[in-house]
Amino acid sequence: MEKPTLPKGTRDFGPAVMAKRQFIFNTIRQVFQTYGFMPLETPAMENLSTLTGKYGEEGDQLLFKILNSGDFLKKVDDPTLASRQLRPIASAITEKGLRYDLTVPFARHVVMNRNDIAFPFKRYQMQPVWRGDAPQLGRYREFYQCDADVVGTNSLLCEAEIILMIKEVFKGLGVTDYSIKINHRGVLSGIAEAIGAQDREVALFVAIDKLDKIGVEKVKEELRPKGFSEESLTTLFELLEVKGSTTNKIAFLYDRFDGKETGQNGLRDLREVLNLLQSYNADDTHVEFDIALARGLSYYTGCIFEVKIHNSGIGSVSGGGRYDNLTKAFGDKENLSGVGFSFGVDRIYDAMEKLELFPKNTIVASKVLICHFDDASLQYGIGVLAKLRAAGIPSEIYPDQKKLDKQLTYANKKMIPFTLVIGSNEMQTGQLTFKDMEKGEQVKATVDEVIAKLR
Amino acid sequence: MEKPTLPKGTRDFGPAVMAKRQFIFNTIRQVFQTYGFMPLETPAMENLSTLTGKYGEEGDQLLFKILNSGDFLKKVDDPTLASRQLRPIASAITEKGLRYDLTVPFARHVVMNRNDIAFPFKRYQMQPVWRGDAPQLGRYREFYQCDADVVGTNSLLCEAEIILMIKEVFKGLGVTDYSIKINHRGVLSGIAEAIGAQDREVALFVAIDKLDKIGVEKVKEELRPKGFSEESLTTLFELLEVKGSTTNKIAFLYDRFDGKETGQNGLRDLREVLNLLQSYNADDTHVEFDIALARGLSYYTGCIFEVKIHNSGIGSVSGGGRYDNLTKAFGDKENLSGVGFSFGVDRIYDAMEKLELFPKNTIVASKVLICHFDDASLQYGIGVLAKLRAAGIPSEIYPDQKKLDKQLTYANKKMIPFTLVIGSNEMQTGQLTFKDMEKGEQVKATVDEVIAKLR
Repeated sequence: MEKPTLPKGTRDFGPAVMAKRQFIFNTIRQVFQTYGFMPLETPAMENLSTLTGKYGEEGDQLLFKILNSGDFLKKVDDPTLASRQLRPIASAITEKGLRYDLTVPFARHVVMNRNDIAFPFKRYQMQPVWRGDAPQLGRYREFYQCDADVVGTNSLLCEAEIILMIKEVFKGLGVTDYSIKINHRGVLSGIAEAIGAQDREVALFVAIDKLDKIGVEKVKEELRPKGFSEESLTTLFELLEVKGSTTNKIAFLYDRFDGKETGQNGLRDLREVLNLLQSYNADDTHVEFDIALARGLSYYTGCIFEVKIHNSGIGSVSGGGRYDNLTKAFGDKENLSGVGFSFGVDRIYDAMEKLELFPKNTIVASKVLICHFDDASLQYGIGVLAKLRAAGIPSEIYPDQKKLDKQLTYANKKMIPFTLVIGSNEMQTGQLTFKDMEKGEQVKATVDEVIAKLR
Repeated sequence: MEKPTLPKGTRDFGPAVMAKRQFIFNTIRQVFQTYGFMPLETPAMENLSTLTGKYGEEGDQLLFKILNSGDFLKKVDDPTLASRQLRPIASAITEKGLRYDLTVPFARHVVMNRNDIAFPFKRYQMQPVWRGDAPQLGRYREFYQCDADVVGTNSLLCEAEIILMIKEVFKGLGVTDYSIKINHRGVLSGIAEAIGAQDREVALFVAIDKLDKIGVEKVKEELRPKGFSEESLTTLFELLEVKGSTTNKIAFLYDRFDGKETGQNGLRDLREVLNLLQSYNADDTHVEFDIALARGLSYYTGCIFEVKIHNSGIGSVSGGGRYDNLTKAFGDKENLSGVGFSFGVDRIYDAMEKLELFPKNTIVASKVLICHFDDASLQYGIGVLAKLRAAGIPSEIYPDQKKLDKQLTYANKKMIPFTLVIGSNEMQTGQLTFKDMEKGEQVKATVDEVIAKLR
């Protein structure tokens, strides 16, 4: 029999990795909850009618589809089957798919529970999603998203709180060198208007969104064949490359957008969000007005966010923005405005690992291993163990009667930081041998002293 | 457009339900960690070669299979396709499936990482599993299992600790009226031997496992056509229906198993496990020796556990046992003995809900909603909000300028227990109106006083 393997793009997370992942999840959850977001979970499987058409042609191709149970061919007639046409056959033999993101299931949940939900609805959701992308470094087929959204309000307080939450999460994680890039759909439209490209917004935004990666010349090359004149490109980069503080950039563009309402409204929103930070006794450290940031432009209608951890070699680790049409795709007539963002835990993990930012001793393991020499000391050790656990100290006893060496090796391999060695002397005096495995130092101590020390 | 729906057998968990579920998960996780178990997570998708053949014919039918990406028909030739034979076609168009339980992925992980694992390996795993069962009350197609297993030791300490963990979890959950049924594969074999049915063990165990549900007469009816004489059935029920304490039952059977090594060894194991409980300063309250308990007999080789919450109308909420062949199905030659058990969170939830055992105020929501009347009090409120959150108090401000009524209704709907109302008086004096929403009482208090009260 062949050795088993994992499906490509998927991973097991053993104890050491899990401990670090839990550190990230707990930090994010704590911040979400402190900001009044409430948890939601949705099933891994959704009806394909819920998922299909929400992520574009390419997204539909990446959905994992689940074969119908029983006679899965019953809805396919012979000619269709013989034709080997993939689409009609696939849609006849599958009706469920795996969650591709957390936003569409959230929208589906809101539509289904509209009458029971108290708006503005602040929900967070931390679950895996699945995409049939070609796996590569940092790109997985199963990965976790942690989303927080508020729907049912236009208030820019929400945008300000997104910035605050990102800052608090990174503070909690110990990530200090990062940027929160912020832009506004209105600013992008203002730029299009300023260079006379209102009718070519999509081409323009797609191109400038890559500015970071491909540079000025390549962006120009991409735009020229699409009818952008040299003059308009010159103006474009004059606007995109304005230097200075965020306040300066906003003032400069505000002048240039003179008479262009959409652009100026976008700038006013941005200014208001930054002002609100001050009301929260916060400042705009880490916040960077990135005029070229476009990100999922067909979706966002107001502020847009994207977060990068510097020197990590990892793309964006978080992003989001305001949208006005969350539930429209489900035929909802009343548009719900919302704003949300998402942390990519797997990318944050990779970045923190690369930058060696995880605190030491995140490992979730016993704090103490009790070691013994014979049946009597094993029995005595069980009593000690019960006391440690009753005091809330994660601990274990080596379950078999093996040489002390072997027991200590086990503690080291499992990164258990302390051992309590119990022999006949220890049983007589109640003074146990308490060993710090990292330092290699040992002292004599009673159970109560050990508990006091470790609690 | 039709209103979206959920796939049958699946559920959304909104904030109120999530809070209760998190209470269960946190309680279980805490106990697992206190006992030295370390976390593992495996992917939702496994190769079908890993899953198939591990759960019997019926289990294979219940696996959710994932359609291959791209040209999923390419491995099916025309004659096979035309034949509409489901099995060969399914196996050509799918190669991955959804996790059916946590044991097989765990075994797969152990086989793949054998050289890196420190044995005895104590792992816990809390993840959803998927089964294409017909949904019914209390049976879902996606549900969570919480497993803890120790592999690589024969020590009966592990069995004793399973009993202790079950007790601690239920203590933490506030469940008091339950039984931990325990039996031993050896005892079952001893009974088969005692009635001369060694060659019909499977038929015997399957029948007596149902004793609880169908009663003595039906069990007899089931066994008669399988060659069990009236005499053997009389002896069988003499053994199964022995009354008295666990100690008495063990002593009685030990006599009856005279000269039958397997049966007596099983009884010795059970006695040893019960003795070990005393070494842990625990007793055998809730523990019940159930001689008819068989549970997945083809799998377990030693002790067998099953837990029921009384008066809940719910079947077993936890179960497990010792097995000797965890990795054998993957061609592993060295048998790893292990023992483990699993909590069914969804069933525990249903039972606790029915018995009204959830503590009040499990809800994960803001503790405080800040309400305001105009722009000035909104701005002032933001400063107050920042202070509450800095003190770790989950809180929020109503994001829009709406009537106070509407803001208070929002607090009630979201079960936010306290509100802080800020008007011009409050801003002048710093004495905010602090209202207990449940009691309807309100007092004046400074921000610091509110923080002191809520922390």
